Amino acid sequence: MEGLAGGSDSPARPPPPVHPLVVPLSYLLGKWRGEGEGGYPTINSFSYGEELVFSHSGKPVISYSQKTWKLASGEPMHAESGYWRPRPDGSIDVVIAQSTGLVEVQKGSYDAENKIVTLKSELVGNASKVYISL
Amino acid sequence: MEGLAGGSDSPARPPPPVHPLVVPLSYLLGKWRGEGEGGYPTINSFSYGEELVFSHSGKPVISYSQKTWKLASGEPMHAESGYWRPRPDGSIDVVIAQSTGLVEVQKGSYDAENKIVTLKSELVGNASKVYISL
Repeated sequence: MEGLAGGSDSPARPPPPVHPLVVPLSYLLGKWRGEGEGGYPTINSFSYGEELVFSHSGKPVISYSQKTWKLASGEPMHAESGYWRPRPDGSIDVVIAQSTGLVEVQKGSYDAENKIVTLKSELVGNASKVYISL
Repeated sequence: MEGLAGGSDSPARPPPPVHPLVVPLSYLLGKWRGEGEGGYPTINSFSYGEELVFSHSGKPVISYSQKTWKLASGEPMHAESGYWRPRPDGSIDVVIAQSTGLVEVQKGSYDAENKIVTLKSELVGNASKVYISL
């Protein structure tokens, strides 16, 4: 394996067509950015920025990444990334790894017409609580 | 939330210093690319390209993404992404989401001097086998 100091992001290739299974969710594709206010009883409230990126490679899966940062300083906060896998029957699986050391499986359904995705966390794995047998 | 057609990748901010916990693994940071030959008893052998990207945001965690593609056509194959979390005691947690609908927790150790990271898969969650209760 060879380390590259620069170079293109990926092999030269025309943008692939959106896979038919991804079409109902293609409105998600792109970069989404917003701001919010975080508040918990035990800490000071804080303003944060958030960015979500949904992309595809022509396969029946959407790549997903998300990050938040403190608005005042730009300091990074949470990040997560994973994949959204829509199925022909209107169900969808989402697998996510989080910068805090969690993995998560969410399952649910999508309503393409109304642009509603309903997800429920079905599995959370916490790296710091998984048994280690070295 | 607002969709952006373009814009910069992240808020303007000077590159942050590498977190002390990431320093022992900082040789990983960057883009790595290689080629390989895949072979299984049940399918034709195939040549593939592979790219790994390790990056950081100044926090005590390394962002990781990986993808493979068929060398002949450039067609995307596998992809995965997640986070590597080194600890001061030389242990390390890795959390990964895979484009095939799997999540994985790997745990192990790193040897900074010899640039060896030893990982063992400790948890695999398969989205298509997790119970769905909608």
